[in-house]
Amino acid sequence: MDVSQVLRMNGGDGDYSYSNNSLLQREVITMTKPIIEDSLTNLYCDMNFPKTLIMADLGCSSGPNTLLVASELVKSIDKIRLELGNSNEPIEIQIYLNDLPHNDFNTIFHSVPKFQKKLTKQMTSYSSSPRCYVSGVPGSFYTRLFLNRSIHFIYSSYSLMWLSKVPEMINTNKGNIYMSRTSPPSVIKAYHEQFQRDFMTFLKCRSEEMVRGGRMVLTLLGRQSDDPCSKECCYVWDLLALSLNDMVSKGLIEEEKVDSFNIPQYTPSSKEVSNEVEKEGSFMIDCLEVSQVNWDASTDHNPIFSKEDAQGYNMGKCMRAVAEPLVLSHFGESIIEGVFERYTNNIKMSMSKEKTKLINVTVSMTRNG
Amino acid sequence: MDVSQVLRMNGGDGDYSYSNNSLLQREVITMTKPIIEDSLTNLYCDMNFPKTLIMADLGCSSGPNTLLVASELVKSIDKIRLELGNSNEPIEIQIYLNDLPHNDFNTIFHSVPKFQKKLTKQMTSYSSSPRCYVSGVPGSFYTRLFLNRSIHFIYSSYSLMWLSKVPEMINTNKGNIYMSRTSPPSVIKAYHEQFQRDFMTFLKCRSEEMVRGGRMVLTLLGRQSDDPCSKECCYVWDLLALSLNDMVSKGLIEEEKVDSFNIPQYTPSSKEVSNEVEKEGSFMIDCLEVSQVNWDASTDHNPIFSKEDAQGYNMGKCMRAVAEPLVLSHFGESIIEGVFERYTNNIKMSMSKEKTKLINVTVSMTRNG
Repeated sequence: MDVSQVLRMNGGDGDYSYSNNSLLQREVITMTKPIIEDSLTNLYCDMNFPKTLIMADLGCSSGPNTLLVASELVKSIDKIRLELGNSNEPIEIQIYLNDLPHNDFNTIFHSVPKFQKKLTKQMTSYSSSPRCYVSGVPGSFYTRLFLNRSIHFIYSSYSLMWLSKVPEMINTNKGNIYMSRTSPPSVIKAYHEQFQRDFMTFLKCRSEEMVRGGRMVLTLLGRQSDDPCSKECCYVWDLLALSLNDMVSKGLIEEEKVDSFNIPQYTPSSKEVSNEVEKEGSFMIDCLEVSQVNWDASTDHNPIFSKEDAQGYNMGKCMRAVAEPLVLSHFGESIIEGVFERYTNNIKMSMSKEKTKLINVTVSMTRNG
Repeated sequence: MDVSQVLRMNGGDGDYSYSNNSLLQREVITMTKPIIEDSLTNLYCDMNFPKTLIMADLGCSSGPNTLLVASELVKSIDKIRLELGNSNEPIEIQIYLNDLPHNDFNTIFHSVPKFQKKLTKQMTSYSSSPRCYVSGVPGSFYTRLFLNRSIHFIYSSYSLMWLSKVPEMINTNKGNIYMSRTSPPSVIKAYHEQFQRDFMTFLKCRSEEMVRGGRMVLTLLGRQSDDPCSKECCYVWDLLALSLNDMVSKGLIEEEKVDSFNIPQYTPSSKEVSNEVEKEGSFMIDCLEVSQVNWDASTDHNPIFSKEDAQGYNMGKCMRAVAEPLVLSHFGESIIEGVFERYTNNIKMSMSKEKTKLINVTVSMTRNG
């Protein structure tokens, strides 16, 4: 599987699009707002009230969250300027929206004019409200994306747990599609080492692209426990494996197909994140936080179902929006409905029995030097 | 008609896509290569062998021409550096690809990784070959697109003859859809004034965005004659009007529908272009050229038809790729096949009778200091 060709959130604005199934990710963005504001305030003051700010959202996906982040960044700057009594000076903001080339950039770009208009209206200081320019940058964030020393602020939410590729394994991850209790130790090791390599590459690339004193705030899907197979990070994929294995037992999918399918993701602990940052050496950690989000954050309001059912149904759709392109590329179209119907049922059942959570690791840092 | 919402080249890679029907525009790009190289050489020397170059292609469309331009720009720089004995110094190039938000950026972005790989292979100097970063910028070039004083080189081919809107007319342009012999003088005046306003706005925006000494090379579909209704620029639209009027006479389209349809384009003379540049005042003209391209440049090789038929057929597809979104938005889907079948036949007939040409105006200029 060429992850850079396959990995993307479901495009468009249909029932299973990421666009319509990303409330959970939105909740996470909202949770990290105070960390972003702190980081931006420090950046703005250190830069001595700059006239230009260049920011990037890495792994921006497509849908309402993409421009929500952009808009929060600009509004934060506007607020900071007001608080510092600096809102009469003109400022220009460039926002780069990055994702893999197969991300649905068209859908984002269609909303950019409306976004720019709305933003201008919301600013506190009309006369010198920030002018905001938006660009799309197609490419893997495990490669260089921007000119040397050109970026002031980098943000990424729920993207960096995606690996550049499925780890190379010496043993088959039999019956599993991610790290799991029954995975061979060599599989766990392969996952961890792939994360270390990828995250290191990421930091090196960003360190070249960021100005001295530039800030970076990253939120990854992660874990609280030291155990990489802990339920908090692996359970959501265990339930997908369960669905696939059920289809194997009914003869609908070949066993070998499941054996050769592994999710290119690693959900690190905060310690594993900070270890890599320290090893790479170009960044100073300002803040490292672990937070939780309930699976039912994927539910806004859906009157058709009973509350519990709706939660499972929506979390099912949320995971489908995230995982469908991966499953589709490996197993083909014919089994898609069967897999995700089972997956949603498994999620529903699990949510009716216990309160399930995802863990977020957020790290805020400053470019040394 | 909201031009910024409607105007685009046909997306995707189907039979009528711009992607597969833009050989004529490619020919024009190739023709202007020497002017671009001159301009880039002067820029590079004036900047004293820069480590970073930031370039933009405005109205990049989607398809092979988009990355052809980007690739020609980078290769020119590589060649200049080799000639000046400067190819061992590292250089980074940022290329912004701009078009209206409804342009098909996804199709461009899918080819970016391949484009970057191919480019690296073609460079003369492997060790310090230019690193090239690509971004998409959605928005009208009649608004600001980039940060103040941030761009070194701007290029645009076959885009600036498109107006920001259909000119407001006090008289109906009866039976016509563009400037024509039978258009009222007020219609011609409205077209000319809209061009003046739009081109002035364009120059003002670019003058703010470009660094001192920055270069800009623009090629517009234009005319040689002083007469704005001259055949060289209007005939191609006359033939579309003919097709629409034929459908009116057969009761397939309402007459009022054609009366209210006008193409948002103006094909200026070189004098009209230079007049606006001088009026605006921020740019010095280095070179102003008029060139010609035969309609049959839209034909590569199509063995199914006789040579003449193929030429008409291909020019018909080329014009369909350009005009279909405009026609579709005004007249609806039901008449599309009928219109373009007639249009292609009219083009075939005309090409069998005479050698028809399009006129290009190319202007190369420097941002004053």
